Amino acid sequence: MEKITYHSWEEEYKSPFGAVKVGSDVQFQLDCSLDGVKAIYLMIHKDFGESFQIKMTPVNQMTVKTVFTVSNGSGLYFYHFKIEYEEDNYVRIIYYGNNQYNLGGKGTIYYEKEDIKQYQLTSYLFDDPAPEWYQNGVAYQLFVDRFYNGNENGKVKERKKNSFIYATQEDLPLYIKNEEGEIIRWEFFGGNLLGIIKKLPYLVELGVTILYLNPIFEARSNHKYDTADFMKIDPMFGDEAQFKELIVQSQQVGIKIILDGVFNHVGADSRYFNQFDTYSSLGAYQSLESPYKDWFTFDHFPTDFRSWWGIKDLPTLNKENQEVKEFIYANDESVIQHWSKMGIGGWRIDVADELSDDFLLGIRRGMDKSAADLVLIGEVWEDATNKIAYGERRQYLKGGIMHGVMNYPFRDIIIGLLDNQTTTQETVLMCMNLKENYPPETLKNNLNNIGSHDTTRIFTALQGNSKKVKQALVLLFILPGVPCIYYGDEVGLEGGMDPDNRRQFPWGNENKETQLVVKELSALRKNQKSLVEGAFYSFSTDCLFVVLRYLSDEDYVLTLVNSSKEEREFRTETIKNNDCFDYRSFFKRQDIKNQMIAPQGVKIVKSIQNE
Amino acid sequence: MEKITYHSWEEEYKSPFGAVKVGSDVQFQLDCSLDGVKAIYLMIHKDFGESFQIKMTPVNQMTVKTVFTVSNGSGLYFYHFKIEYEEDNYVRIIYYGNNQYNLGGKGTIYYEKEDIKQYQLTSYLFDDPAPEWYQNGVAYQLFVDRFYNGNENGKVKERKKNSFIYATQEDLPLYIKNEEGEIIRWEFFGGNLLGIIKKLPYLVELGVTILYLNPIFEARSNHKYDTADFMKIDPMFGDEAQFKELIVQSQQVGIKIILDGVFNHVGADSRYFNQFDTYSSLGAYQSLESPYKDWFTFDHFPTDFRSWWGIKDLPTLNKENQEVKEFIYANDESVIQHWSKMGIGGWRIDVADELSDDFLLGIRRGMDKSAADLVLIGEVWEDATNKIAYGERRQYLKGGIMHGVMNYPFRDIIIGLLDNQTTTQETVLMCMNLKENYPPETLKNNLNNIGSHDTTRIFTALQGNSKKVKQALVLLFILPGVPCIYYGDEVGLEGGMDPDNRRQFPWGNENKETQLVVKELSALRKNQKSLVEGAFYSFSTDCLFVVLRYLSDEDYVLTLVNSSKEEREFRTETIKNNDCFDYRSFFKRQDIKNQMIAPQGVKIVKSIQNE
Repeated sequence: MEKITYHSWEEEYKSPFGAVKVGSDVQFQLDCSLDGVKAIYLMIHKDFGESFQIKMTPVNQMTVKTVFTVSNGSGLYFYHFKIEYEEDNYVRIIYYGNNQYNLGGKGTIYYEKEDIKQYQLTSYLFDDPAPEWYQNGVAYQLFVDRFYNGNENGKVKERKKNSFIYATQEDLPLYIKNEEGEIIRWEFFGGNLLGIIKKLPYLVELGVTILYLNPIFEARSNHKYDTADFMKIDPMFGDEAQFKELIVQSQQVGIKIILDGVFNHVGADSRYFNQFDTYSSLGAYQSLESPYKDWFTFDHFPTDFRSWWGIKDLPTLNKENQEVKEFIYANDESVIQHWSKMGIGGWRIDVADELSDDFLLGIRRGMDKSAADLVLIGEVWEDATNKIAYGERRQYLKGGIMHGVMNYPFRDIIIGLLDNQTTTQETVLMCMNLKENYPPETLKNNLNNIGSHDTTRIFTALQGNSKKVKQALVLLFILPGVPCIYYGDEVGLEGGMDPDNRRQFPWGNENKETQLVVKELSALRKNQKSLVEGAFYSFSTDCLFVVLRYLSDEDYVLTLVNSSKEEREFRTETIKNNDCFDYRSFFKRQDIKNQMIAPQGVKIVKSIQNE
Repeated sequence: MEKITYHSWEEEYKSPFGAVKVGSDVQFQLDCSLDGVKAIYLMIHKDFGESFQIKMTPVNQMTVKTVFTVSNGSGLYFYHFKIEYEEDNYVRIIYYGNNQYNLGGKGTIYYEKEDIKQYQLTSYLFDDPAPEWYQNGVAYQLFVDRFYNGNENGKVKERKKNSFIYATQEDLPLYIKNEEGEIIRWEFFGGNLLGIIKKLPYLVELGVTILYLNPIFEARSNHKYDTADFMKIDPMFGDEAQFKELIVQSQQVGIKIILDGVFNHVGADSRYFNQFDTYSSLGAYQSLESPYKDWFTFDHFPTDFRSWWGIKDLPTLNKENQEVKEFIYANDESVIQHWSKMGIGGWRIDVADELSDDFLLGIRRGMDKSAADLVLIGEVWEDATNKIAYGERRQYLKGGIMHGVMNYPFRDIIIGLLDNQTTTQETVLMCMNLKENYPPETLKNNLNNIGSHDTTRIFTALQGNSKKVKQALVLLFILPGVPCIYYGDEVGLEGGMDPDNRRQFPWGNENKETQLVVKELSALRKNQKSLVEGAFYSFSTDCLFVVLRYLSDEDYVLTLVNSSKEEREFRTETIKNNDCFDYRSFFKRQDIKNQMIAPQGVKIVKSIQNE
């Protein structure tokens, strides 16, 4: 037995579990069987703020306790323990902190102060649940140019000058670059809004209720992250009338549209910057007399300006500028309000972590002012609770700003497990870490994915192993948050990194088996409230990763994932890292097999009876 | 006055003028007023062959003469003169040879044997006039993909996998390359045979009677110089039925089709080489068991093979191989015979100077066997009479092989003059040089151009100066040979080097003024036999370049080109380099002004009367 015990996931040692509201009391307990202990302290400090050294109260010979009141505002607190003990008449100090993985749970002893890894305690202002339609939903992300061309005979209309149309729907995406590696022409398959409207029955059949569209405003590129005009649907995609029609027809079949809001930068070829004299407006690049002059930051006019990651095609908007704020979100005719009033379901904010919390708050307010029940999701690639961007810890999840983020960490966890790069036990640790760090509503609000327009597709990431793709889809649906299927992943579309991950949807050449799995999972999510609202437990046996979503004895889903090639037995006595859940009584239930998602290769052994 | 006079263009000094048939007697005269002349020799040798030193016979104190019988076969003879004279009791030797430009005409004295530039005397076997329809014709070169898409609604059918379609007809051509500079995808505008059929009325209106098509056999690229199947029309272009229809409909409007024969190499992606396993046949690249194995030369099978200029996409055919000869031209179902029997007008042979004379002779025989009145033109970039390719002087113009070549030297002369890089006098010299070197029928057979798919377009070469473009078109039509208009040049299409010179024909955006000039020139060529059969004289005044095509006093065309910006006077007394033509009596004619093509900026002064 170890001399010191603390476990941030066990109620005995820390209560309540995970993130807490500002003002909450958090109870800490530590067990220590060292001889000569003089004092044990909870060492806790507010992120970039005040530090506290709290002497813990002995409860018995082994156990100390204390209560910390989270009173220094929302954000992160970091803590460890300091143990003073006497040995050979010397007072010695050791520390107990987070484990080497920095994932929470069970910690470890440190002998040097500078080595200590801190535990994270997230505090937030208030629960900020996303609208029910969203939390209950099944999302589908769609790269418009690559989904479906709804024009008669697949004709590509409103073609952009000096661009290319792919010859066949099976052609592989390709960037057309010059010798300097710069993109010199854009290429299009010709997907459009009409195509989405025509494919709504397909999405309904799949069980989709939320459609997240990559940007659709006018832009030169096929991806449209280089906005040319925030107030106009790209002509190749359609027009405002068609967009309204898409909203109406989607609503009729129970689907809400989430738009991609790209506000950090615009295209150099935009009506605001107008570097290539495409627009009638006087762009910031063109003249110091431009009404858009202060929308950008010129270090030397006009050639030297701030741009996104130095990409000169994407000049950065000066988001401190009041006019920019007015235009993007604040005034009644702002971009956010204009489109939000049209009946959309909400926004996904591009590079959210590069916008200030203040700017994001403005977006949320503009959005909420326009319509009720909208959702705001941010693009963040990491654990969004502790992301540092531009030297600042971000607080967009404290309540009242963003509902959630695109959950890339879950993607990493799923692929790591199925690609056998992480063990089932490590997988559990990483899941628990996210569960601990995120405010509970955020975890439900996050838009989970196993691939997007910015990643390798799941089929390719899992080396074309269809069985594993199905397992990944199962995990996408059973982990907390809203599952979002990247178009084509449900039919086994291949694709490496950008632009290969943006292939045309393989109409007529779909992997129907994978598709069926998605349909079944959508149905399951609809019928089992536990998949939305249920508590999330994950644990591993020797070789299985197990997820339990538990709402009640009548509504729970138990999922077993066997990431090995061999048949594995599920024996409850081998369960590790049980997360304060009484699995012993749970597994005594007779009906358990019926509620299991157990893939081929898992042999369920009713070993629970042998207990 | 100079001490020694010889002028290869004047009948007094050399007779007959220019190239002669094998067996002809050529009379040479030299005037020499040096003191102490002992002997003068004609030093003449057969190219890569026997040398002759012929002592010339004194006629009077100043003049020597001799006759040389061209008895060493067809090809080139080179000559100069050696003068032995006595000075200060020493026998001294000087030489008289070609001028420093190596252009013939008046020569110069040389003191060192190794410095001498030789005069060229071309000898040929027999006159080999191209068919009348060809010599009388007006040709139009057409890059099929870029001319006109005749499909309903401009639909592009039979698209090639992993290729691109230009978004708009105005898009600028672009090679899509990887970082190594290799083309990785082909791009198409979608022009096809149906489009040509539909535009026949346009070609008729333009006065076109010969249509030279860039390659049309199946190939991966848009240019189709990488043949995949010699027996099949490229599916994007159409099919054999449509090609037959094109022939029939063309014939009905008096137009003959010339095909581009690419026999030096094929595409790596062909049914013969089949590197990418596209075809069902067993290609040479695929197996040593391939029936095509010996059609290619492998230095190391299969990766190291001979290819055109080292371009691995274009493996070279082994043209010494009997099967290749049979397939290309010899057997009844050979490529040449198959298509020649279909009613075409003839062939333009790609990189003719890289095929052996023997192979070209085979092509000519295969062609002549298939149909009467066909024409055979070769691609040669330089003066084709003295081109050395692969260490051999070529004899494809000796009679019975090629009728003529694509006349790029005339293009250089025209652009040099109009772009003010060469003087009017130099222009005359260069014209005369070609007139002297080519067998007379060849000069009429040559397919003249001021631009092709391999050069900068005339509009761009002349810096977008429309007036100069018109002058260039005039020169194209009045110089000896068959004028060939590169599609679009007649409507002012711009275009730099490949691929920019392959833009889509600007339907609806034509320069009608230039077009009108072409129509007028075509009509003139039709009505004035002198432009086809007339003797060709060129001379310069101070600032004007003058061309006379003279058939009779009733049928001649006099053209004055003022390449300067200022107005120039045409005064006959300033004529230089008159080419043994009695211009004095000619210019006394009263009707002369009516037969002149004189552009704006030329003031005709009737100075002739003042003589």
